Amino acid sequence: MPLNVPIVENILSANDRLAEENHSRIEAAGVFSINLMASPGAGKTSLIEKTLPRLTDKFRVAVVDGDIATSLDADRAAAAGAQASIQINTGGECHLDAVMLHGALNQLDLKQFDLLIVENVGNLVCPADFRLGTHKSVLIASIPEGDDKPYKYPGMYRGVDALVINKIDLLPYIPFKMDFFQRGVEALNQGVITFPVSCSTGEGLDAWIDWLIQNIKR
Amino acid sequence: MPLNVPIVENILSANDRLAEENHSRIEAAGVFSINLMASPGAGKTSLIEKTLPRLTDKFRVAVVDGDIATSLDADRAAAAGAQASIQINTGGECHLDAVMLHGALNQLDLKQFDLLIVENVGNLVCPADFRLGTHKSVLIASIPEGDDKPYKYPGMYRGVDALVINKIDLLPYIPFKMDFFQRGVEALNQGVITFPVSCSTGEGLDAWIDWLIQNIKR
Repeated sequence: MPLNVPIVENILSANDRLAEENHSRIEAAGVFSINLMASPGAGKTSLIEKTLPRLTDKFRVAVVDGDIATSLDADRAAAAGAQASIQINTGGECHLDAVMLHGALNQLDLKQFDLLIVENVGNLVCPADFRLGTHKSVLIASIPEGDDKPYKYPGMYRGVDALVINKIDLLPYIPFKMDFFQRGVEALNQGVITFPVSCSTGEGLDAWIDWLIQNIKR
Repeated sequence: MPLNVPIVENILSANDRLAEENHSRIEAAGVFSINLMASPGAGKTSLIEKTLPRLTDKFRVAVVDGDIATSLDADRAAAAGAQASIQINTGGECHLDAVMLHGALNQLDLKQFDLLIVENVGNLVCPADFRLGTHKSVLIASIPEGDDKPYKYPGMYRGVDALVINKIDLLPYIPFKMDFFQRGVEALNQGVITFPVSCSTGEGLDAWIDWLIQNIKR
């Protein structure tokens, strides 16, 4: 199906133009924004749940949740203290794109917020191809996924600005070679800032929260 | 981008026609075939590694491995005893389609085999939309992914013929409500045959192997 190729390129280029527009709006409102990506079940919503209570006394946070179905994630973000929580049901699409985020931004008075967290659809492939216009892309890896994921999903690991390694509390029960994992990460994304954490025990979350706060205040 | 919709429909319909052709070839050769799907790291390759040594003394098994990059999985399948192991590098595509499997089948003398295992790309969304022409679709869920996955990825859970629940050895360390998970599965796919297993400890694998053998002999 070679016809598919130029069409996909046109869509990506249209997406990039709208991502620029999203970025300008977010930037003009003085909001720091992240695009949170991961496999299903790596802990995107859990990380949001652990992050919000440590920020919302000082900062106003909006969460935009992309999901194929249900509003479970947006409900969890709201319960964790997000001042605004918007659900995007992608209707089967396997990623968020700039059009969807544009629609969500229309529902927010951006000036009211300090931090915008966009939770992408659980997928280690497609979200990497669609810029949204956020300031930083953050990937959550998860110990039970295995140590070979940078090698197998290079597009995702190559493009991100920060890497959270979640579920480190499970390291004693799983054969995960951190050296092998880190070598794969370094080959694709040298020097990327990395936060090993456990959303269950809270270990490692301080450094992640500090990074967010530094970026909010910048 | 409404232009996208009819194009996607045409691609899916072309895919279905070729899936029919794949199915006829596989069926004519007397091979039982499965399309193995899951999130990244749920255990597709591990299940293949545990399955092959228990079959290859009696049956001849071919494995077709779909991956975005690397041939790590095909190498592992070959090491585990697959009589043939073919790697499809999808070149960035997030799923296998009938065209890719068609190309792989051209490299196999199907009559030489009893079982064909197709390992799809790690993704809980897109593979559900692309029939390959195999006899059965098998989804591997994984305990650390969390108990909400049927609710959040209904398309995948709805369409499969069998469900393997892997990493049950991690149940003591993870808050996973099996009742909640199973209710979600039942709502989408009533009575689907389910195999709780641990590829680490071997627990539950007998029933899975028996199911495969029954289907091979049918």
